[in-house]
Amino acid sequence: MTLFPQMINDALGQSVIGRAVSRGIITIDAVDIREYTNEKHGKTDDYPYGGGAGMVMQVQPVYDCWKAVSEKISAKHSAIDNAESCAKPRVLYMSPQGRVFDQSFAEELSKERELVFLCGHYEGIDERALELVGAEEVSLGDFVLTGGELPAITMIDCISRLIPGVLGSTSSAQIESFHDNLLEYPQYSRPEEFMGLKVPDILLSGHHANVEKWRREQSIIRTLEKRPDLIAKAALSKKEQKFLEQLLDERNK
Amino acid sequence: MTLFPQMINDALGQSVIGRAVSRGIITIDAVDIREYTNEKHGKTDDYPYGGGAGMVMQVQPVYDCWKAVSEKISAKHSAIDNAESCAKPRVLYMSPQGRVFDQSFAEELSKERELVFLCGHYEGIDERALELVGAEEVSLGDFVLTGGELPAITMIDCISRLIPGVLGSTSSAQIESFHDNLLEYPQYSRPEEFMGLKVPDILLSGHHANVEKWRREQSIIRTLEKRPDLIAKAALSKKEQKFLEQLLDERNK
Repeated sequence: MTLFPQMINDALGQSVIGRAVSRGIITIDAVDIREYTNEKHGKTDDYPYGGGAGMVMQVQPVYDCWKAVSEKISAKHSAIDNAESCAKPRVLYMSPQGRVFDQSFAEELSKERELVFLCGHYEGIDERALELVGAEEVSLGDFVLTGGELPAITMIDCISRLIPGVLGSTSSAQIESFHDNLLEYPQYSRPEEFMGLKVPDILLSGHHANVEKWRREQSIIRTLEKRPDLIAKAALSKKEQKFLEQLLDERNK
Repeated sequence: MTLFPQMINDALGQSVIGRAVSRGIITIDAVDIREYTNEKHGKTDDYPYGGGAGMVMQVQPVYDCWKAVSEKISAKHSAIDNAESCAKPRVLYMSPQGRVFDQSFAEELSKERELVFLCGHYEGIDERALELVGAEEVSLGDFVLTGGELPAITMIDCISRLIPGVLGSTSSAQIESFHDNLLEYPQYSRPEEFMGLKVPDILLSGHHANVEKWRREQSIIRTLEKRPDLIAKAALSKKEQKFLEQLLDERNK
């Protein structure tokens, strides 16, 4: 639910998410709140009661848009499930005041059949609209943006990648950042030498076990340097634990 | 610097940021890394040395793209300043392993004349490219995305709003979320009643001082409920401090 549906369609029409949509694995429907206003000039915002800078998105268009979306979802599921209705989908309102979005929250949301993202603009949305639609406030982080569209697009990208089939078979959401609470090891590709910088010999050795050991050690070194808060939670073998202790000893010298 | 320049242009061409660009207040230039590859089929990625899933963005196209961008920026500033060169702009590499982006980081970045955003895809970028361009890793949060484009667009939106003139005169970046470390008060606009829900009487009273007092108290109530971590840092008057203490007393009953 947005005042800028084109922005949603443009951003999510490309790359991995666009392909998942065209293969029918996920559906993304950008619904224009403006189509639901009763105001004859298509206006959806007005001055705040009590004064103050900026405009507020009005309750009527947001509520009526949500009602239409809910009914559409309900009709879709009663057709699929042959049931009378389905539970109301969660409505996520993009707000810097909400619960902070992270990978575990994304995993939780990826299990939902339907999700509604409500994107605000201007100085916010009439409080009664948020009450009536049962909005959950979700934040992308401690920063202020022009509107809710960019956080919604970002969350949709992150959540979609966790849906089986969205990523191709060569890649996997599981083998990426934060595996075992360690940061990723450095990557190298062709050529072997560029501007005098060479690929580490070990990666050219063809010795699989040594490559694995080196990569794990590089991950440990990087995690210790960049995210020391993660290292205590890292899942390490006994040998790796010893490697970490040596690193810490050297640091303290 | 991106493999998907269209995505950047689409997302930032609309709304407040698009208007700031067309008024010449800021300039956004989405540069296609693919245009700089020496590979005849336009390829920019290859298998990682040492094996593993996925592809790695190669060093040559990234480095040559950065060189071209740096030279363009340098030429622009030597024309403006009539100086021989300008300091190299910061290069921000979008990575979940980096420093976490927040409002104070955005304020710091908004003081730079030029910023370069490097967007990765696939399993990352050849480590030597990151070294050669002096990339600073920046993270939008603890979650994994398809590529660096959405974080870059989000950061550009946030940083741009802090540049004088980007926001209109009726609105201001300063009077928004997190003012005095308090969350925003609830907003209401027309109509006075919707689905049986009324606008609080005080907002219709026309009594400016009472409205202000009510709004500050609502902000305190919300901050205590939703972000108790902020309340200790909130800038409160003596009367407001007393109001907070009463709230806490009632809670403990």
